[in-house]
Amino acid sequence: MKIYDISMKICYEMPVYKGREAKRPVMKVESDFTSSSVYESKITMNMHTGTHVDSALHMLPEGTTIDTLPLEKVITKCKVFDLQHVTGGISEEHLKEKDIVEGDFILLKTKNSYLDILENEFIFVDKTGASYLEQKKIKGVGIDSLGIERAQPEHETHKILLGADIVILEGLNLRDIEEDEYLLVAAPINVIGAEAAPARAVLIKEV
Amino acid sequence: MKIYDISMKICYEMPVYKGREAKRPVMKVESDFTSSSVYESKITMNMHTGTHVDSALHMLPEGTTIDTLPLEKVITKCKVFDLQHVTGGISEEHLKEKDIVEGDFILLKTKNSYLDILENEFIFVDKTGASYLEQKKIKGVGIDSLGIERAQPEHETHKILLGADIVILEGLNLRDIEEDEYLLVAAPINVIGAEAAPARAVLIKEV
Repeated sequence: MKIYDISMKICYEMPVYKGREAKRPVMKVESDFTSSSVYESKITMNMHTGTHVDSALHMLPEGTTIDTLPLEKVITKCKVFDLQHVTGGISEEHLKEKDIVEGDFILLKTKNSYLDILENEFIFVDKTGASYLEQKKIKGVGIDSLGIERAQPEHETHKILLGADIVILEGLNLRDIEEDEYLLVAAPINVIGAEAAPARAVLIKEV
Repeated sequence: MKIYDISMKICYEMPVYKGREAKRPVMKVESDFTSSSVYESKITMNMHTGTHVDSALHMLPEGTTIDTLPLEKVITKCKVFDLQHVTGGISEEHLKEKDIVEGDFILLKTKNSYLDILENEFIFVDKTGASYLEQKKIKGVGIDSLGIERAQPEHETHKILLGADIVILEGLNLRDIEEDEYLLVAAPINVIGAEAAPARAVLIKEV
């Protein structure tokens, strides 16, 4: 069994959505060995920090919360697709070239895994791509950007996917991952009532 | 493939170590649909909230941090042992009755999974039990309490285990789990420099 870590490191200096200061996680040491016999810290973080799973409430007022997510949706076979040639938005045209069938969980590997563009001009899935994935009735989609969309003021990509009960997994690091099939494990911490939650996502390959 | 969620729910009302108010996670909504087109929240939580993995720095000044944990240590076969008959501390005598060999990751199911005792008189592993596990050279140990020890002012159980590079997984919920072997997945979120971090722990059984 070979394990691939596809998660981002969580620290103050990490890339955050649009580089916004309020999105940075803040760690605080609550006790250390100068004053205590134990070392303990706490973290304050936005639910969309680093690698995380979105739930429908993120974009839809009547949407579901992350604690209702069936784990079978995020612990499942997945297909990694290499889309490093794409500039800007991943569209229907790009996705049509890939072997996507009903029930798939797909991970999109883009230039984001290599270039320092996560806070601004990152590669995303445009609304035509989202509609195509909805038609294909996939189970979920992951991407190596902190948001699956940008530059679409109506958030059509999120709304199409979440409205179709398709899991969105964001903030992946796919640098070391080749186009292939794997077992994905991306179960988020179980924060009751939240619209999203961080996950330590991994890929597992039987060898 | 059958998936068992063995994690605690994270919310303000959840059991916390010794019932301390400062240990309660606090969720805050940062934007909702009354003032924004998206719903986003943040969480402030102690690293030892709910289901989590301890690293050596929690008890040892020169100890390792959670980001150095090899994932092979927490994504691994495991054995669940039923110790519901134990009152107070789990000792060497209790553990000797179980089939524990070098390299095992063991999960200890106790009365904690059923009784409302997590904040005070929870079942724990005493220092004789910890020494036995050190001798056996296990890989890791998980328990259904928020701390693997209590009532040992020198924290011997933590120090023995962490000093021997044995992973400690705390805050499990083993109510629905039978004594058996499973694949454990308990990878913590990758908080750089932290002494512990939350994980969504699951057991997987091939069926």
